Amino acid sequence: MKVDKRLDELRNYMDSKKIDLSIITNPDNQFYLSGFKALTYSRPITLMLEKQEIKLSVPALEEIHAKEESNVDEIFVYYEHPEGAHKGTHPYHHVGKTLSKYKPGSKVGVDKAHTASQLVDYIENLNFEVIDISKKIAEMRYIKDKAELQLIEKAGELVNLGVSESLKVCKEGITEMEMDAKGNTAIFKETAKRYPKATLDFMVMSPSGVERTVMPHVFSNTRKLKKGDIIIHSRQVALNGYRAELERTVVLGELTDNQKKAFDAAIEAQQVAIDFIKPGTTAAEVDEVARRLLKQKGFGDYAINRMGHGIGISLHEEPSLRFDNDLMLQEGMVFTIEPGIYIPGVGGFRHSDTVILTKDGRKLITEYPREMEQLNF
Amino acid sequence: MKVDKRLDELRNYMDSKKIDLSIITNPDNQFYLSGFKALTYSRPITLMLEKQEIKLSVPALEEIHAKEESNVDEIFVYYEHPEGAHKGTHPYHHVGKTLSKYKPGSKVGVDKAHTASQLVDYIENLNFEVIDISKKIAEMRYIKDKAELQLIEKAGELVNLGVSESLKVCKEGITEMEMDAKGNTAIFKETAKRYPKATLDFMVMSPSGVERTVMPHVFSNTRKLKKGDIIIHSRQVALNGYRAELERTVVLGELTDNQKKAFDAAIEAQQVAIDFIKPGTTAAEVDEVARRLLKQKGFGDYAINRMGHGIGISLHEEPSLRFDNDLMLQEGMVFTIEPGIYIPGVGGFRHSDTVILTKDGRKLITEYPREMEQLNF
Repeated sequence: MKVDKRLDELRNYMDSKKIDLSIITNPDNQFYLSGFKALTYSRPITLMLEKQEIKLSVPALEEIHAKEESNVDEIFVYYEHPEGAHKGTHPYHHVGKTLSKYKPGSKVGVDKAHTASQLVDYIENLNFEVIDISKKIAEMRYIKDKAELQLIEKAGELVNLGVSESLKVCKEGITEMEMDAKGNTAIFKETAKRYPKATLDFMVMSPSGVERTVMPHVFSNTRKLKKGDIIIHSRQVALNGYRAELERTVVLGELTDNQKKAFDAAIEAQQVAIDFIKPGTTAAEVDEVARRLLKQKGFGDYAINRMGHGIGISLHEEPSLRFDNDLMLQEGMVFTIEPGIYIPGVGGFRHSDTVILTKDGRKLITEYPREMEQLNF
Repeated sequence: MKVDKRLDELRNYMDSKKIDLSIITNPDNQFYLSGFKALTYSRPITLMLEKQEIKLSVPALEEIHAKEESNVDEIFVYYEHPEGAHKGTHPYHHVGKTLSKYKPGSKVGVDKAHTASQLVDYIENLNFEVIDISKKIAEMRYIKDKAELQLIEKAGELVNLGVSESLKVCKEGITEMEMDAKGNTAIFKETAKRYPKATLDFMVMSPSGVERTVMPHVFSNTRKLKKGDIIIHSRQVALNGYRAELERTVVLGELTDNQKKAFDAAIEAQQVAIDFIKPGTTAAEVDEVARRLLKQKGFGDYAINRMGHGIGISLHEEPSLRFDNDLMLQEGMVFTIEPGIYIPGVGGFRHSDTVILTKDGRKLITEYPREMEQLNF
């Protein structure tokens, strides 16, 4: 990861906006700019980017972890035990101290799309002017560098493995959660073998049946799979912080005619979008080619989601392949392609794959069979 | 869950502060007030509490899920496909429409500890006065009702199972992640049997070795366990949204004298705190009794975390068992008790158990052996 280049770019932007100091709280932005990704529960972590230095403020519990992993000039610590109290107990203590070096009225950049309103109040009450820098950082993250792309490709191999192992046990009587666990275990083992000391993160869900597949974002539960079920097995794996996504809609036994039509339309729309996407097209055009097909097949009203989203550090990130996004796509961007159809009483249908935009086209980095005959267990 | 009672209490508070409408974005607060917990990635969900009605604004993808699970008077939907666009595409569309019924200058409650600063800007730019209601909602969540306590106890049984199954395979050569997976699978199976259709959420990590156990919050990785290792196996399970936590520090083989001393001190401090905590004590007093013991044993400087935290809907929630928190504890509060010692070069040592405060004392709802002889594999 070329973190220094990122800091240069953000500092140049700050200069152009006369911003003296930026305060960043989105953990994914912090990871992008410092290499440090903490598990944050109740103790806030702030990253402070100055003209010359970059600094982290962490709770005492994270001090060693931050020293280990972050690529910053200084780490400030706040405490929750009496012995440390004189060095500051408030999560914003070091934000305040850092701000005190600047003239009141100075401009402070904040990623306001994530930062809690309480922290912005704190900064404004010290008489600084807060400028939103969320969009700039999101845009910097659009195009992945070589090291990022390599990790995303490796994550792709792991997610392929997870999906294929989970779907091996996709049978009547197994629960959604047990099916998920099978793939998880395979991913753990393979990662241990290939990448000792790697950090792994994953997301998996497998809503099943007519009623649950129309809800795209639900945790897997203890529902047992039944004859005739549709299942959307949906997975992401992150290797050392970078993600790939693979999803397959599979069936147990026979579908109704209506279900078959929707299934085929979703597959065909995905193929059209994969074949179409490349540098020079716009996000909206990708959405449009797939959507046109879904409309022709009579599913326009049920194709309620965008045709894909950026992926990298975050589960979903910009750019969005949405009908109203005229952004021109470029080499090095990474997207999921996932036209979905959700029909109450009939079911949900969605495959998702991850593509990297290359100079002339795209590279598909996830793979698992796509056709109905191959997905009928 | 007596959601109506909660809404009454929050509305009374709003009346007392002359707040006309509250806008709540913390997913845990939304769940507490509406029964709906979405998986939110990139599409914001807002809960709006008015004097008479409570309303949700969700993206189209969550409409069916929200109808299924939420206990609200009205669900607004925003869209990302062209057919729905005329009904609103912006995540704040329905916030704006709802606000438009109120006089500019009216007071709007917001949980500012979580809400993104961008949303507060949006509300303020429409000329409303934003009042922070985070603290009130956090306080309402201090004391759990009967239904909540029942779920937490059941989550306790599941976390006990997960820890015991994971620790059965805690041996040389297994990776942290594989050990975690073992317990996860056991939890999935048992939950499927006991609570068909339950929703499960969990958190697990098992940092191992001297270097990793001093970092309390790191994901499990592919490190293989070795002779002489200390491992902190740390788990939470949430059943239908409510959590319990159980953590054990275990060892593979012989510890050094220094490690033994730290191990024993951490266990003893935990026992002292468990025996001490009850309604009528303050949070700070619980921290103090355990901390005093750790100091006597010479570990004061390494006992850098509070002695426990509230638990329920969130991984960590208020009240905090912290040296500077004078809150009087009450029946129905639920805490983790987890004195920790982290010594660079020596290792980390921490057990955690979950207790419910009863009329006269506390009920321990997690269990696994605690003494070193029983935790040496």
